[in-house]
Amino acid sequence: MTDHVRIVLVDPSHPGNIGSVARAMKNMGLRDLVLVRPRSFPHADALALAAGADDVLTAARVVDTVAAAIADCAFVAGSTSRPRNLSWEFATPREAAERIRDLPGDARAALLFGSERYGLANEDLNHCGLLVRIPANEAYSSLNLAMAVLLLSYEVSLARERPVGRLQLEAPLADGAELGHFYAHLERVLDEIAFEDRTGYLMDRLRRLFNRTGLDRNELQILRGILSAVSGRRRRAAREDGG
Amino acid sequence: MTDHVRIVLVDPSHPGNIGSVARAMKNMGLRDLVLVRPRSFPHADALALAAGADDVLTAARVVDTVAAAIADCAFVAGSTSRPRNLSWEFATPREAAERIRDLPGDARAALLFGSERYGLANEDLNHCGLLVRIPANEAYSSLNLAMAVLLLSYEVSLARERPVGRLQLEAPLADGAELGHFYAHLERVLDEIAFEDRTGYLMDRLRRLFNRTGLDRNELQILRGILSAVSGRRRRAAREDGG
Repeated sequence: MTDHVRIVLVDPSHPGNIGSVARAMKNMGLRDLVLVRPRSFPHADALALAAGADDVLTAARVVDTVAAAIADCAFVAGSTSRPRNLSWEFATPREAAERIRDLPGDARAALLFGSERYGLANEDLNHCGLLVRIPANEAYSSLNLAMAVLLLSYEVSLARERPVGRLQLEAPLADGAELGHFYAHLERVLDEIAFEDRTGYLMDRLRRLFNRTGLDRNELQILRGILSAVSGRRRRAAREDGG
Repeated sequence: MTDHVRIVLVDPSHPGNIGSVARAMKNMGLRDLVLVRPRSFPHADALALAAGADDVLTAARVVDTVAAAIADCAFVAGSTSRPRNLSWEFATPREAAERIRDLPGDARAALLFGSERYGLANEDLNHCGLLVRIPANEAYSSLNLAMAVLLLSYEVSLARERPVGRLQLEAPLADGAELGHFYAHLERVLDEIAFEDRTGYLMDRLRRLFNRTGLDRNELQILRGILSAVSGRRRRAAREDGG
């Protein structure tokens, strides 16, 4: 069993696909499924297509936001077939699986999949440290949702059998909730200092940069310390100006 | 496109699965689909699930026997999750894909998949040079048919991007039809010489042995020459006895 890897389906529209996803996950030894705003769940079609993987369905959590789905995850990879505007690190399923394998032992990872029709939205990508593109026929690259989950789960499960040295970190990786607080803090401070966002994508770029890096908790504390210091100096400066 | 690799579905019972197979194949750049005794084909469900891969469905050939499906193939791998009684070479999907990649340039390969319920029958395995087992959760190892096709097609398509030296053969590999004639010849001669089949599996074992080897046409001619010689000597001996 690969219990530290979570599959997150964002806005899945067909309950049958949720069932097929559960079956594919269980085939590959995964069982942590989280559904963000599923259109219909639970549903008889999901159960029918789960074909014996109903334990995965029964244990699935339903949440309202991607942030809630990945709050305890130290690494988030998003599956997408479309090229994106901003600079992104794209990985193959095999590379993503190796990144997950090399996480520290207790770190949880999430694989994010968007809706059948539209894939992941830009705001979902803001939670990802890596985008994964399944190599496919360029003229016909859109895989069925459960097929995409199967391929990534297969690579995750295979990678576990090729262990190499894990990353040695001086502190655990920050999880999604901690990163969320950091980004909120960062945005507040940028706002306080009236930093001009010329493109409208400033926070997106900053999130992607830090998500990609894989911050540990010490590093996160250092960065938040810097932000607090910036805020404090500004407030002191304001007091001194006013006084 | 990977035109030298054929997907063969033996006794598929659900037309929807045939459609999903077509989609998975096209995703991975395969398009040569052969159906052996499909229960219902063509069918609206197949078309619905093909989701744009109807060109693969339209071009699919329907045949009555596995022998006909692989008559022009030099290498046949069968997908199975069950352990078999006789000694078999089992490969991972990745290893099978590498074997296919390393075939001589003009050699055609077939990947055989059995029915949803029963998998490949023993007589189907007699056409295979290799059995492929998809690594899966031992407690829940049965993949949906189209998922199995996707995984193998994915590995075939990835392997093409890691080219190594191809096998150098002095003659083309024998194809399924030529091997079929050879096995019939061999069986005739064994019968002529009244060779005792103690287990009832003699021909199965012999087929598996030669299928695994990958005979080229020169080697096949040599073996058939030997068989003819054995027959001839026996006939001469009979004549001499009688005369």
